[in-house]
Amino acid sequence: MNNQGTRRPVAVLGATGMVGQRLVQLLDAHPWFELAEVAASDRSAGRPYGEAVNWRVSEAPPAAAAALTLRACDPAAVESALVFSALDAAAAEEVEPAFARAGRAVISNARNRRMDPDVPLIVPEANADHLALIEAQRRRWGGRGFVVCNPNCSVIGLALALAPLARTARLERLVVTTLQAASGAGYPGVPALDLIDNVIPWIADEEPKLESEPAKIFGKLAGNRVEALDLAVSAQVHRVPVSDGHLLAVSLQSSPRIGPERAAELMARFRGLPQELGLPSAPDPAIVVREASDRPQPRLDRMTGGGMAAVVGRIRPCAVLGLRMEVLSHNTIRGAAGGTLLIGELIQAQDLVP
Amino acid sequence: MNNQGTRRPVAVLGATGMVGQRLVQLLDAHPWFELAEVAASDRSAGRPYGEAVNWRVSEAPPAAAAALTLRACDPAAVESALVFSALDAAAAEEVEPAFARAGRAVISNARNRRMDPDVPLIVPEANADHLALIEAQRRRWGGRGFVVCNPNCSVIGLALALAPLARTARLERLVVTTLQAASGAGYPGVPALDLIDNVIPWIADEEPKLESEPAKIFGKLAGNRVEALDLAVSAQVHRVPVSDGHLLAVSLQSSPRIGPERAAELMARFRGLPQELGLPSAPDPAIVVREASDRPQPRLDRMTGGGMAAVVGRIRPCAVLGLRMEVLSHNTIRGAAGGTLLIGELIQAQDLVP
Amino acid sequence: MNNQGTRRPVAVLGATGMVGQRLVQLLDAHPWFELAEVAASDRSAGRPYGEAVNWRVSEAPPAAAAALTLRACDPAAVESALVFSALDAAAAEEVEPAFARAGRAVISNARNRRMDPDVPLIVPEANADHLALIEAQRRRWGGRGFVVCNPNCSVIGLALALAPLARTARLERLVVTTLQAASGAGYPGVPALDLIDNVIPWIADEEPKLESEPAKIFGKLAGNRVEALDLAVSAQVHRVPVSDGHLLAVSLQSSPRIGPERAAELMARFRGLPQELGLPSAPDPAIVVREASDRPQPRLDRMTGGGMAAVVGRIRPCAVLGLRMEVLSHNTIRGAAGGTLLIGELIQAQDLVP
Amino acid sequence: MNNQGTRRPVAVLGATGMVGQRLVQLLDAHPWFELAEVAASDRSAGRPYGEAVNWRVSEAPPAAAAALTLRACDPAAVESALVFSALDAAAAEEVEPAFARAGRAVISNARNRRMDPDVPLIVPEANADHLALIEAQRRRWGGRGFVVCNPNCSVIGLALALAPLARTARLERLVVTTLQAASGAGYPGVPALDLIDNVIPWIADEEPKLESEPAKIFGKLAGNRVEALDLAVSAQVHRVPVSDGHLLAVSLQSSPRIGPERAAELMARFRGLPQELGLPSAPDPAIVVREASDRPQPRLDRMTGGGMAAVVGRIRPCAVLGLRMEVLSHNTIRGAAGGTLLIGELIQAQDLVP
Repeated sequence: MNNQGTRRPVAVLGATGMVGQRLVQLLDAHPWFELAEVAASDRSAGRPYGEAVNWRVSEAPPAAAAALTLRACDPAAVESALVFSALDAAAAEEVEPAFARAGRAVISNARNRRMDPDVPLIVPEANADHLALIEAQRRRWGGRGFVVCNPNCSVIGLALALAPLARTARLERLVVTTLQAASGAGYPGVPALDLIDNVIPWIADEEPKLESEPAKIFGKLAGNRVEALDLAVSAQVHRVPVSDGHLLAVSLQSSPRIGPERAAELMARFRGLPQELGLPSAPDPAIVVREASDRPQPRLDRMTGGGMAAVVGRIRPCAVLGLRMEVLSHNTIRGAAGGTLLIGELIQAQDLVP
Repeated sequence: MNNQGTRRPVAVLGATGMVGQRLVQLLDAHPWFELAEVAASDRSAGRPYGEAVNWRVSEAPPAAAAALTLRACDPAAVESALVFSALDAAAAEEVEPAFARAGRAVISNARNRRMDPDVPLIVPEANADHLALIEAQRRRWGGRGFVVCNPNCSVIGLALALAPLARTARLERLVVTTLQAASGAGYPGVPALDLIDNVIPWIADEEPKLESEPAKIFGKLAGNRVEALDLAVSAQVHRVPVSDGHLLAVSLQSSPRIGPERAAELMARFRGLPQELGLPSAPDPAIVVREASDRPQPRLDRMTGGGMAAVVGRIRPCAVLGLRMEVLSHNTIRGAAGGTLLIGELIQAQDLVP
Repeated sequence: MNNQGTRRPVAVLGATGMVGQRLVQLLDAHPWFELAEVAASDRSAGRPYGEAVNWRVSEAPPAAAAALTLRACDPAAVESALVFSALDAAAAEEVEPAFARAGRAVISNARNRRMDPDVPLIVPEANADHLALIEAQRRRWGGRGFVVCNPNCSVIGLALALAPLARTARLERLVVTTLQAASGAGYPGVPALDLIDNVIPWIADEEPKLESEPAKIFGKLAGNRVEALDLAVSAQVHRVPVSDGHLLAVSLQSSPRIGPERAAELMARFRGLPQELGLPSAPDPAIVVREASDRPQPRLDRMTGGGMAAVVGRIRPCAVLGLRMEVLSHNTIRGAAGGTLLIGELIQAQDLVP
Repeated sequence: MNNQGTRRPVAVLGATGMVGQRLVQLLDAHPWFELAEVAASDRSAGRPYGEAVNWRVSEAPPAAAAALTLRACDPAAVESALVFSALDAAAAEEVEPAFARAGRAVISNARNRRMDPDVPLIVPEANADHLALIEAQRRRWGGRGFVVCNPNCSVIGLALALAPLARTARLERLVVTTLQAASGAGYPGVPALDLIDNVIPWIADEEPKLESEPAKIFGKLAGNRVEALDLAVSAQVHRVPVSDGHLLAVSLQSSPRIGPERAAELMARFRGLPQELGLPSAPDPAIVVREASDRPQPRLDRMTGGGMAAVVGRIRPCAVLGLRMEVLSHNTIRGAAGGTLLIGELIQAQDLVP
């Protein structure tokens, strides 16, 4: 299809939220996909997207998207076979299975089904092989439809940065402290009063995701299931006065131990399947290693690779666990909309769309 | 003296910088000490303090201090026997020893002599007994003078929070990630452009202090020296857009392991020598344990105990090291000026001033 | 009463909001008033204040207030004769008249009745004589009760700063541009995403207040009504990333014209009735004139006079209107809770409480 | 030239500063110009640009620029006939005349020569005809060289927004209040401590520029000089916690008076000479009128037209002067580097380069 000049029509569910806006932005002029349908809550359905959306990610929404009429989040109202879901957990709970049951491929940002045994939790550079779960999952829905999940926004950057290390050593223990951007909470999200001259050492429900999802992502495909890696993760999360870009301070114990120079080399030359396939949204390099002592920084580095790369710096020995580093990734691009889109491209490239 | 209604005259060296300003502020109406002399670089000497200082810590400097004439940082120009030094490392290198040699008690904020074997590195609640090193040190200077050091601003809050745990268990390994306030860099310090919509994963020379000073503070006095604790510390530091208040995410391994409830109880009821002696600047409680899931926060909690307490929250198990928590302390009060002042009060209470 | 050592019991309506919290904070240990009752929406009524409130203005609520049980905003549930209302406009619409009708003195922060002909709109230093409207208003409610209004948070600082000029010249035209703090929008208020690396050139319904209220405040009492001043005001308002403190850039045309030195002198020596009466919350001086070229600044100057003074700087000629200056005042203290409290003190001192 | 596929080699003086960095960024892949030479202070000369620069405007400098060797700011060391100067005032004082005397065309960002009678002060959309002064100026330097000045960063956005109004009415009086970004002060510029939870009502030397430059820009070319417009301007400037983008609240008196609808229409359809000539950096439209009540906002709107457009909103009547509005422009692109570049393109298009 991508060789024929016609683009596959796709839909975005939850198109008016922060992640939905990023999806709409990234799909504008996409070489493989055409944003054909946008859907949101019943309250907005029927209105032009450009009027209903409180656009917060740039000057104004793309003209083509702005002209689309919002549909209901219902498979009867949406035709596309490939559906990107930026629904929140409450809405996703029933809507996404309905689309899967209706035979659609759903790429989901919601947390609801990430740990389901037959649902692939995918960072395309790390575990594209887990898409094999789709076959098993189709039996659940009784057709060609399925759900694939994008991990938590902090987990994605972490998993991308660690993917090259996981190829050569067993990851055993991780201590991760995050400094996360306000956009991760959506809009309106965090009150300004909480982030003026302040940071918040807590984000609802975030630490359990950081402590559970990596083990599945780095788990081993065994038949129609994934054996989780035996990986102990301790995460302490913080919200900081930054618009976009999650920064993670990471300490890692692996077996065998990996030295800083070796880690930097593995990361810098890492290529995953998206890079091999030349997927349109695949950053190349996937991981940018910065040597300056004060990088990565959110404002300067979050758009590296179009917001799709992980930027890693301060790779050095850790006196406690062996290796440590700082990892930055753009939370609403790589960590959400862009990550979802990359999974969609991978699925398209592998002819998995129903 | 403190019973007699007359106050001991004291001097502040480096009185125009950020820490010096806080010292001047805290010494206003102090019950034991009278700010008799302020000193700064030669360039400012001779000018009224109120004119020379670019006062940044409140509306305006106290009137009595503003009227003082700035002196040179020279024992010949300063008479007080008790001297609080807020000099930076470059100035402190020669000035502080000159005062010690001239028979003065110098309480120093500079990093220069913190690891000297005969210099006490004091968090009054944690290791007041280390003041015994003064006797040995006096031999170095050949008189009654000496230098006592206040630890690094991040280390103080950490050591205060861990002091009750160190009384009942051996601290073995620490992973500490800091979110530090801009005032820690002095004034002008960090450019605004670096902290608008941004954080910086690096502070010059900060991590080595966090990784070395705790072992000395929690070390054991053995004759005229301190045996450092065998404590492995991994620190990753960050500058965040906060004016005052350093927040630390801490993971701790101890032997025996301490559970969260026990840790919270030990902290909440902890009293150190300053609390026993009722020192004027001693916070009571020394450690405030907060149970709300999203605390401590710099803007709301930094002034707890007049900016002298450590505020600890999110005490919970750590899957990797055993115990973890968030620790907040005010970096220019407890972490600098106030910590120095508390050491001065301790020395005064113990009749150690020459 | 204030001479007898017993304090008048008072109530705060809307005690859980931002302004309500400030009122609770300011009433702690007040020499004349005792916070006897707190009331909030029906949803919170019956719960202890300390549990129901999301306290945002300091470390924790005063212990005495925390122990109070929240009442409903209903005169049947509240006994105090003097009632401070921090209700928002929607709640105030019916609740405040109900209290007035029930014979209570209501000092209101809500916008609803500010422009009613028989309701005094009071800045105590500027127009205490307008309290004479109470007599007329009591006829409306048929008893001893009444409502007195505190002006808009930006208007108060402006009116306080201009009061000494209005005594000697006729104010004719004002161009005012505001830089307003986030706390002015309450909590949660403005989303953090809107104030990170950003300012917003708009606040709902704010400009009409700035353009209408000053004419009433500076109007002339004529029998049982106030003749509004013929004052043209153009206001452009902005929300900026500041927690507390509204800053106003003001250009003023008066007749006769007032020069900068004269204006500074009038302001610096200005005393109003609250200062003459020595009301507990009256700042003295009421206006602080700062000469440094870069003041006033919100973070450094908002707590001047306990947050009750206007701080004025950069007084200089205006090439277009004659005179210009920068005016700062604390929006939730002087501009809301503290202003309300000062009106209450004035009413108490004048024996107007029913 | 621009039709021939070869690009004119140009130089940037002061290439390591904030404005210099933006110039280097904007010149990357420029269709008419090739960045051939970068120059900076003697201290940096001889080093590769990529090493000497503390790059702050994006992830990393363009590779081609990074490889250039920094030259001294001396006509003997720089060959290009067209020179963009981002030097600060101190350095520009002698360097820019030296280049003019050496026969080069200098487009300057420095304030030094803006008000010189024979130096064009150019906003290309507003007063391109003032370039006629070059002829007179060449007599001063005795050759083909000259200096053309880019106005102050706040003045440019203001002048661009008012240009269509100045075509149909006489501008008489302006009250302007600015909310200016930190990048306007260069790097390091404003200390972070001054802009956390704070704004500063002052910028050194800024108001006189706002009050004098517009009268020259809107002045009338009369032979070899410009008759300044009789325009009274009152400016009150503020630094706010924003990285890029100056926002101006403007009240305007004109003769005849222009209503809001008419003003919006004139602005929206305005085209200047750069738009007519299709200069590569000319935004089209030059002015974007936004109707949403809360726009323009710096973070969302500063990149409108690639950072080269003025964005105007809240156009409405002013009770004092007649018309008011909010004007936003990107201070280091349109207000500095991009404005300079556009002047360079205009000069190139008019064959004025020596």
